[in-house]
Amino acid sequence: MASIFTRIVNGEIPSYKVAEDDRFYAFLDINPVQPGHTLVIPKQEVDYIFDLDNDTYAGLTLFAKKVAEAIKAAVTCRKVGMAVIGLEVPHAHIHLVPMQAEKDMDFARHAELPASEMTAIAEAIAGQFAKL
Amino acid sequence: MASIFTRIVNGEIPSYKVAEDDRFYAFLDINPVQPGHTLVIPKQEVDYIFDLDNDTYAGLTLFAKKVAEAIKAAVTCRKVGMAVIGLEVPHAHIHLVPMQAEKDMDFARHAELPASEMTAIAEAIAGQFAKL
Repeated sequence: MASIFTRIVNGEIPSYKVAEDDRFYAFLDINPVQPGHTLVIPKQEVDYIFDLDNDTYAGLTLFAKKVAEAIKAAVTCRKVGMAVIGLEVPHAHIHLVPMQAEKDMDFARHAELPASEMTAIAEAIAGQFAKL
Repeated sequence: MASIFTRIVNGEIPSYKVAEDDRFYAFLDINPVQPGHTLVIPKQEVDYIFDLDNDTYAGLTLFAKKVAEAIKAAVTCRKVGMAVIGLEVPHAHIHLVPMQAEKDMDFARHAELPASEMTAIAEAIAGQFAKL
């Protein structure tokens, strides 16, 4: 069965998309730890990120770097943090989290933002991504 | 002034080294959140990981992938998680953390292991790295 992320890539489940190319897809985490919290995934459905072949893996991390640059331009933060935890959804994903302080990368804490705000954030990041 | 990590690379401060090449260096975190918690750094002293040029950045993430493979072979875990938080030490570093559960990537919690155990873990990971 397709993972929830594959269903998002295929448009079967809606997402706040911020970037896409032929191999990778980026969208807002629906339970952000900070506003602008984004997930970056390979379209190839692999559970464990380090099982990706080196070319796809390096491509994914470079795609995430570009998305991080767009997030930093769109959302007020000192840096964009990165995390791969990945024991829940069996489809490799990189978390990108706008940070002001170390404690901002706390996956025990989640915010629920109104859809209008999520849409505005996604559009702002997508707009910056398009300029890169 | 050289960062604490540059001083580690230069051997001015001791570390539990697990891997090294001409551009990158990996060593045990002295305050591990889990046994086997490793830091992977570029020898080039850059504060923000996404400020690295694409070639060095991709090289760093590929080096981390190989170190993660060595950790997984040396330390009992389901997966190796990855995080870049980096607001404290101004020298880009990737955390690699052996994980059994999501909560294992909790940077608020630290263990202090005896030096003998740290040495044994570093040697086990280094031994696996050498086989890759």
